[in-house]
Amino acid sequence: MQRKSFEGSRCPVARSLERVGEWWSILILRDAFYGMTRFDEFQKSLDIAPNMLTRRLNGLVESGLMERRQYSERPPRFEYVLTDIGRDFKPVMTAFMTWGNKHFAPEGVAVMLTDASTGERVSPVLVDEANGKKINARDYIMAAGPAASEAIRKRIAFAAEKRAAPDKKPDFPPEGGEAPQA
Amino acid sequence: MQRKSFEGSRCPVARSLERVGEWWSILILRDAFYGMTRFDEFQKSLDIAPNMLTRRLNGLVESGLMERRQYSERPPRFEYVLTDIGRDFKPVMTAFMTWGNKHFAPEGVAVMLTDASTGERVSPVLVDEANGKKINARDYIMAAGPAASEAIRKRIAFAAEKRAAPDKKPDFPPEGGEAPQA
Repeated sequence: MQRKSFEGSRCPVARSLERVGEWWSILILRDAFYGMTRFDEFQKSLDIAPNMLTRRLNGLVESGLMERRQYSERPPRFEYVLTDIGRDFKPVMTAFMTWGNKHFAPEGVAVMLTDASTGERVSPVLVDEANGKKINARDYIMAAGPAASEAIRKRIAFAAEKRAAPDKKPDFPPEGGEAPQA
Repeated sequence: MQRKSFEGSRCPVARSLERVGEWWSILILRDAFYGMTRFDEFQKSLDIAPNMLTRRLNGLVESGLMERRQYSERPPRFEYVLTDIGRDFKPVMTAFMTWGNKHFAPEGVAVMLTDASTGERVSPVLVDEANGKKINARDYIMAAGPAASEAIRKRIAFAAEKRAAPDKKPDFPPEGGEAPQA
C-alpha cells in the first residue's frame, strides 16, 4: 500500500480510514451487509483477484471488523462474519449510498433503502439523538474532546475564526505556529 | 492508482468510492469542512506532498466536489471551495467520525460534534426522515430501484434468502448463474 499511515493521528476520521484502508474493504463490508460470509461469495460478487481478497479480508479481521470462523472441519472451511465494530460501520455505508444515489445515479436509482413493512423508499437523515433535530452546519459544530491533539485544536480554532468572520482569511495554523502533524 | 475503476458499477457505494477514491480526498474534504480553502492550508494541515495534494484537489474538482476559484489576480491565486455535492458529503464524514470515536479512540475522544448553542456533545444517529424512526437492519432493507443491474438484483435476492433462513446457506449468485460484474 503506497499510502501514509494515519495511525498516529488522533482524528477519528483518519483513524477510521486506517481500518477500511482500501476501497475493496468497503465493498467487502457492503457485501457482508447483504449477508455474504464466504470467500467465494465475496469473490463472485466483487470480481476481485483471490490474493487481493485474502489480503483485504485478513486486514478486516486484524482491524477487528470481521471474525474468521470455521464452519466445516472436513474439508477445513472458514467464513468471515461481521463483528460489532463491523456492524457499526452500517451508518457510514448508508450515508455513502444516500450520497451516491443523490448525485451519481443519472440513470435512476439502482438500489435503495426501504421500509421493510411498507416497501416505501426511505430517506435516511442524520439527527441529534437527544432531540431529533437534523444535524446541520450552523447548529452543530466540532469541538475538542479531552484527548484532542494540538493539530485538532488548531483546526477547530481555524473553523471558529472562519465562522466568526467568513470574509476575512485567518492564517492556518491559526497562531502561525508549526504545522500540525496529526 | 493501482485500483480497479468502479465507474461501470451501478452500486451507489461503488460510485461514491469512485469520487472520493483515495483517503487523502476524504481528509481534504474534512479540512474543507473546517473552513480551509487554500492550497497551503491543506498542505500544512495534512503534511502531504505538494504534487499529491495537487492531484487530489484536481480529482475533487473533476468529480464535482470542489470548485477552483481565483481569489487574487496579481499574483494569480486560487482557492478550492466545496460545491453542493461536496457539502452533501458531510453526513458520510459525520458517520465516519462517530464510528471512529466509538471504536478507535482508546485515549478518549479527541474531537466531537456538539450543539453550538449548548456546547453539549451530540450523538448523531440515522433516522427515517418520514417518521424519525432509527434505521436498523430489521425494519429497513435494501431493495432494487428502477435502474438496478443484474448484479444488484442478485445481491438483493441473496440478502432476502439469508433473512428468510439465516441458518441455511443459499448459493451466491442466487440462481447459480454467472457472477455479477457490476
